[in-house]
Amino acid sequence: MPSRRGSPIHGEILTRAEVEAYLRRHIPLSAALGLRAVDVGGDRIVLEAPLGPNLNHQATAFGGSVSAVAILAGWATVHFRLRAAGYAALTVIQDSSIRYDAPIHSAFRAASTPVDDATWSRFTRALARRGKGRVPVDVAVEADGRVAATFHGRYVALAES
Amino acid sequence: MPSRRGSPIHGEILTRAEVEAYLRRHIPLSAALGLRAVDVGGDRIVLEAPLGPNLNHQATAFGGSVSAVAILAGWATVHFRLRAAGYAALTVIQDSSIRYDAPIHSAFRAASTPVDDATWSRFTRALARRGKGRVPVDVAVEADGRVAATFHGRYVALAES
Repeated sequence: MPSRRGSPIHGEILTRAEVEAYLRRHIPLSAALGLRAVDVGGDRIVLEAPLGPNLNHQATAFGGSVSAVAILAGWATVHFRLRAAGYAALTVIQDSSIRYDAPIHSAFRAASTPVDDATWSRFTRALARRGKGRVPVDVAVEADGRVAATFHGRYVALAES
Repeated sequence: MPSRRGSPIHGEILTRAEVEAYLRRHIPLSAALGLRAVDVGGDRIVLEAPLGPNLNHQATAFGGSVSAVAILAGWATVHFRLRAAGYAALTVIQDSSIRYDAPIHSAFRAASTPVDDATWSRFTRALARRGKGRVPVDVAVEADGRVAATFHGRYVALAES
């Protein structure tokens, strides 16, 4: 088993309220987005945002808000799973793409697809061995009972020394 | 010359303050981002955001904020150029991609590349003839004296009937 660099937190698993508080404290735009953590279990994250603060000029959800919530859902999926597994690492986004499939007329949810075990193992092996790993995360944004946007992000984790 | 559908504004050209006020009024997240319009002339738009409201967990700019400001710069490039040319159309983003090249430690600017004339003509011809046109826009995000992110978006304009 690869060694885990600097591991002060020993498999910390957070509640929805703790994830939400973490995001709001460390990423102030989360509060402006009205972000709520809806589901943080099972290696995936579901974040929700209301329509009000995220309106655009056509009274639907602003694409920049949708993208920001999806970026956070992907980031949180990696960051909190690493923490739960005891890794001390800084995770940042490297690149992403998003397609807007339908206008959003209500609150919307960004739900990450769990990273499959083989991909996750490759990622954490690279992180442990080389101090750096990359991992892709897919996120679906749902609103009005359908998928309204599909997001793909790649994240980089750097071991904290 | 293609006819221009519904054209209530007759080549309106806005100032920086008017663009900024428009964005803040119609897209409330603009205010939370601390958005300012720095340059709105010459068929390109430069928007700026301060670091403070856009911090992430590492005291650099949150990728979701960077992406949102780039989406707005691209959108404003299309929206206000259409208005200046007298087209009455609704412009929305269709898809986009962004690559984060460097961490951002200060205020950042999203500067669109002007859409070249041939591409613009194709776009406005489709808009006038079929009531719908698509146009790509590139945006560079600059901070700390370098390009920190590169954004590519595709926007769709729908003629207002």
